[in-house]
Amino acid sequence: MRIGVLTAGGDCPGLNAVIRSIVHRAVADRGDEVIGFEDGFKGLLDGRYRPLDINSVSGILARGGTILGSARLERARLADACENSEELFGSLGLDVLIPIGGEGTLTAARMLADAGLPVVGVPKTIDNDISATDRTFGFDTAVGVATEAMDRLKTTAESHQRVMVVEVMGRHAGWIALEAGMAAGAHAICVPERNFEVDDLVKMVEERFARNKRFAIVCVAEGAHPAEGSMPYQKGAIDQYGHERFAGIGNRLAIELEHRLGKEAKPVILGHVQRGGTPTAYDRVLATRFGWHAVEAAHRGDFGQMTALRGTDITMVPLADAVTVLKTVPQDRMDETEAVF
Amino acid sequence: MRIGVLTAGGDCPGLNAVIRSIVHRAVADRGDEVIGFEDGFKGLLDGRYRPLDINSVSGILARGGTILGSARLERARLADACENSEELFGSLGLDVLIPIGGEGTLTAARMLADAGLPVVGVPKTIDNDISATDRTFGFDTAVGVATEAMDRLKTTAESHQRVMVVEVMGRHAGWIALEAGMAAGAHAICVPERNFEVDDLVKMVEERFARNKRFAIVCVAEGAHPAEGSMPYQKGAIDQYGHERFAGIGNRLAIELEHRLGKEAKPVILGHVQRGGTPTAYDRVLATRFGWHAVEAAHRGDFGQMTALRGTDITMVPLADAVTVLKTVPQDRMDETEAVF
Amino acid sequence: MRIGVLTAGGDCPGLNAVIRSIVHRAVADRGDEVIGFEDGFKGLLDGRYRPLDINSVSGILARGGTILGSARLERARLADACENSEELFGSLGLDVLIPIGGEGTLTAARMLADAGLPVVGVPKTIDNDISATDRTFGFDTAVGVATEAMDRLKTTAESHQRVMVVEVMGRHAGWIALEAGMAAGAHAICVPERNFEVDDLVKMVEERFARNKRFAIVCVAEGAHPAEGSMPYQKGAIDQYGHERFAGIGNRLAIELEHRLGKEAKPVILGHVQRGGTPTAYDRVLATRFGWHAVEAAHRGDFGQMTALRGTDITMVPLADAVTVLKTVPQDRMDETEAVF
Amino acid sequence: MRIGVLTAGGDCPGLNAVIRSIVHRAVADRGDEVIGFEDGFKGLLDGRYRPLDINSVSGILARGGTILGSARLERARLADACENSEELFGSLGLDVLIPIGGEGTLTAARMLADAGLPVVGVPKTIDNDISATDRTFGFDTAVGVATEAMDRLKTTAESHQRVMVVEVMGRHAGWIALEAGMAAGAHAICVPERNFEVDDLVKMVEERFARNKRFAIVCVAEGAHPAEGSMPYQKGAIDQYGHERFAGIGNRLAIELEHRLGKEAKPVILGHVQRGGTPTAYDRVLATRFGWHAVEAAHRGDFGQMTALRGTDITMVPLADAVTVLKTVPQDRMDETEAVF
Repeated sequence: MRIGVLTAGGDCPGLNAVIRSIVHRAVADRGDEVIGFEDGFKGLLDGRYRPLDINSVSGILARGGTILGSARLERARLADACENSEELFGSLGLDVLIPIGGEGTLTAARMLADAGLPVVGVPKTIDNDISATDRTFGFDTAVGVATEAMDRLKTTAESHQRVMVVEVMGRHAGWIALEAGMAAGAHAICVPERNFEVDDLVKMVEERFARNKRFAIVCVAEGAHPAEGSMPYQKGAIDQYGHERFAGIGNRLAIELEHRLGKEAKPVILGHVQRGGTPTAYDRVLATRFGWHAVEAAHRGDFGQMTALRGTDITMVPLADAVTVLKTVPQDRMDETEAVF
Repeated sequence: MRIGVLTAGGDCPGLNAVIRSIVHRAVADRGDEVIGFEDGFKGLLDGRYRPLDINSVSGILARGGTILGSARLERARLADACENSEELFGSLGLDVLIPIGGEGTLTAARMLADAGLPVVGVPKTIDNDISATDRTFGFDTAVGVATEAMDRLKTTAESHQRVMVVEVMGRHAGWIALEAGMAAGAHAICVPERNFEVDDLVKMVEERFARNKRFAIVCVAEGAHPAEGSMPYQKGAIDQYGHERFAGIGNRLAIELEHRLGKEAKPVILGHVQRGGTPTAYDRVLATRFGWHAVEAAHRGDFGQMTALRGTDITMVPLADAVTVLKTVPQDRMDETEAVF
Repeated sequence: MRIGVLTAGGDCPGLNAVIRSIVHRAVADRGDEVIGFEDGFKGLLDGRYRPLDINSVSGILARGGTILGSARLERARLADACENSEELFGSLGLDVLIPIGGEGTLTAARMLADAGLPVVGVPKTIDNDISATDRTFGFDTAVGVATEAMDRLKTTAESHQRVMVVEVMGRHAGWIALEAGMAAGAHAICVPERNFEVDDLVKMVEERFARNKRFAIVCVAEGAHPAEGSMPYQKGAIDQYGHERFAGIGNRLAIELEHRLGKEAKPVILGHVQRGGTPTAYDRVLATRFGWHAVEAAHRGDFGQMTALRGTDITMVPLADAVTVLKTVPQDRMDETEAVF
Repeated sequence: MRIGVLTAGGDCPGLNAVIRSIVHRAVADRGDEVIGFEDGFKGLLDGRYRPLDINSVSGILARGGTILGSARLERARLADACENSEELFGSLGLDVLIPIGGEGTLTAARMLADAGLPVVGVPKTIDNDISATDRTFGFDTAVGVATEAMDRLKTTAESHQRVMVVEVMGRHAGWIALEAGMAAGAHAICVPERNFEVDDLVKMVEERFARNKRFAIVCVAEGAHPAEGSMPYQKGAIDQYGHERFAGIGNRLAIELEHRLGKEAKPVILGHVQRGGTPTAYDRVLATRFGWHAVEAAHRGDFGQMTALRGTDITMVPLADAVTVLKTVPQDRMDETEAVF
């Protein structure tokens, strides 16, 4: 079998572990041939690829990033490609394509599958917001990084009577904020799934100071929103070149809290630190299992599907299921902690 | 409500997170009273306890060990206690007891529940071998510690052409060996669920050296066994005081491999390092959720049950289910990697 | 002997290790009495203190922050205090005061010493900019945190063709930027000791992209400055409430680079994450040695001095020497790497 | 200039950082050519080497092990080589050789230098026992790993009333035991520089249990010795094949303590975990500086010397000084803590 692999979208710890696992299973165990396209779908369309043998994946299990590179692709170009995709696959001699990526990538994968091509997807999202799988690799690493940062901030905040607003990733879903916030014992957690009242945050901080606990950690997902009318501070600041900047919720909320509390409130924007570097053991195992099962699915002819974690098992689910509904934090998860505002 | 808490059995990262979570939910949200028994069931029988308020659990979320202490209890004494347990609970004014512990503790909990007492269990096992729950807290931390150790050993082994036999925890189930072995890319994994042939290990190492990959990492669970007749080295070494020592599989296997390979093979026994220290974010979240749900179950009167993770949800399962069947690594999990011997 | 201890100024990993070491040496070995003033000099002036015995410092060796709290004190109030300091010390029965702190604290210590009081200082600065000592505790931890963050950012930047501007601590001295930048292999390091030309940074990034290394990490100390006329972007952005914000060099430099390069350049402001949490082994050892030697100096009557690391030895140096000259990165250290701009 | 590099002796975090630094300084800044010999002096004698350009050292700064491999060489073969070394260097076109290694390597380097060849050494020892330099790279990483292990063991020991005997590296010098023991707050530290009385350890443990601190951590260097007559347990245990095994001091001391105390005492042998994996920031900086200065020394013609840290400076010292006296822990360092027995 000739298997093509590509990684697309944002960085995510575990990508290399998937690639390694695919190569190990396919080449070493199954006698397949594996080629890796460079810079995601671009490499596929441009025919830029390299063969991946066992040596080429040596030592990458624990390395962040992706040895294949990644790039965003314009939908239009991909749509065009779908029309000629049979020729494309034919000219490359591909028996199956395994794209590893997030919602956009899986949508593209589905387009190719709908065009009749043999595709097996591997889901990837730091944000953990793909509904067809219990968890995705990269998420555990991100939660770990955010937790360790808050662990460190806590001792500083405690010693110096500060309010810290820590912004973590999570555009549409608050999983990282929820789990890192719980793991670090944040005093408030703000998620996209529930609009928060700034007044409630102010009250919480004031009560803590009244009880002589003179610090507070607020963990806010980048996609969290204040309830309508709850926060006057709505735009970013204007930089010297006239552009709006620093409009993220972490920065705005810290400014607003400082304004209302009359106490220093510092924003800490964790950003890309959360998505790089060595993956946790959990993410390496999940990524490795996804890679193994993707190869097995390819051999079974299970196309148009993607790998998914359900309970403790890896199963295959239709690509269609992956990309329709976003997995957000449900009400009962938010109820499990008083910290969600 | 007056809630009693105790921790019993071996150390496990996350114990303090459960205690903290119970106190937060019960005292702060529910207005309950919580008391903590010292040194497990001993404290219960001796009436040694202290009140646990919010301040008493401040700062313990990320701390290893247990602030309540732990100790093994003779079954006989507990059986006696069960006969008088109603009086015991009455004299302490207990509305519910939440014991946090492993198989032995949950069996004791079941005895009390069978005697008609209000008990809600929280399962604890580093080894992840309780069948009624997908995962237990502490396991992720242990896997992380073992993985990091093997990450480090790998560069040394690689530079110096060594065989390393790394023994990890797992008396009856090979979960830690399987997941840490996969996460670290061990070249062989030996688990209690499948007896290994030493010849196969020898062959694997020799083939690696023949391919100029002159090192190998063998990850072996403490409960793994060689196939009958496969390994002559069966006992420990005899110390100067005449006692048998170093009889663990890691030590014996390293000696046997060195004997057969004619190459240095070093045992590395990770031991208690795996069960102490700061829990991972994953374990803190799971422990916190278990604590929260245990309090809720108590308020619902859901006695004779214990908390369990199923998929992404925490559910309650009968204590009886927890302690009958051990959760071992199933065949299909072992099939997912060629490394399991 | 009755010894008073206080911590003042910003947070710094290792403060608790100093306190613990003082108590261990003084109470356990020397039979002294130790009291700890709360919130720095404020506690001294207000007479707020608590006795510190062995149990009170149990388990704090690896903990960030300071169990005594810290607060900034107005100079005026301290100057007044100096006039009555003899009475103050007398009323408290103090034989010696050991203040642990940075430049401000050591200046205050010197004032007290000049007023004839028995004072032994312990220097503390994350920034490592006290000239009388080779290194200060906390610095190694800060460098470690910044390095790990850049390690993580590097894989992300590499996979996604980004310029990252990482701002680290260092108001007057570039030690953290220099050492973390070297440790992480940053492509440019900007320090307060040498004004950088933005053009040079632009050129470096463009050359890297031309050589197909399409990412760059710029590590900039918070106190670094562009050469005059080199960077038009001079002020922060204006927030909705009309205040200037985000005026730190990291934010401004990222905006300027993005403006000139026509490529995304992301600021990452590490901030307080660098000064909290568990200290490294190096910092724990240095802090512990400082504490031990401070007690010894007290017993020898070596007042008006502070502890200092010189080579591998701890020596005592006059407080006067500590606070006159700032230890900045010398020319030959900058010459050791091409990365300093 | 044509520069040859080789790494010899045991693994040590930072070796790759030295190699990278030499290549960066020599190739990128100086326009030199660098070749790397494989497997230490063996590669030199066999003429096995590869060119090292900037790309070949990309991404190795933080990686453990050595990309050049390492192997021990028989002295005899090297002595022979020295006689023909001029020819050897001539045939390879070498202008200078930079061997990176420990005592043995530096002795070999000195032999070559004495034979009139251009050699610049870089010292390497995990144990930190080379007297001509304040510290060596790798040591800080080893101390960090040992400290973290003891941090974890402490919570377990505390919760379960155990004595733990942790054996760390240090054959002739107790630096790792001293610093890791101090950093982790070990209750006893045993170093090669001072023979310990087992009775004193027994007494310390018993006193701790009497004070209700029912656990103890003993940190022992692999080269530590009991005082004569102090410990009857003198040999290892005898394995099934009749060989003596487990004769290290950690194992023997744990058995002896258990024997005398009548309490469980567990040995934990950290071993090779201490010498592999990612180096700390400290070690990366020191290794990078050593590499830079070695190239500079080569260009200055400073042969027969090696790099050394003195205070905060890197200086060159004669190879002769490096290998005559071992740097052991001096009396006054041991006096700084009551924990050294």
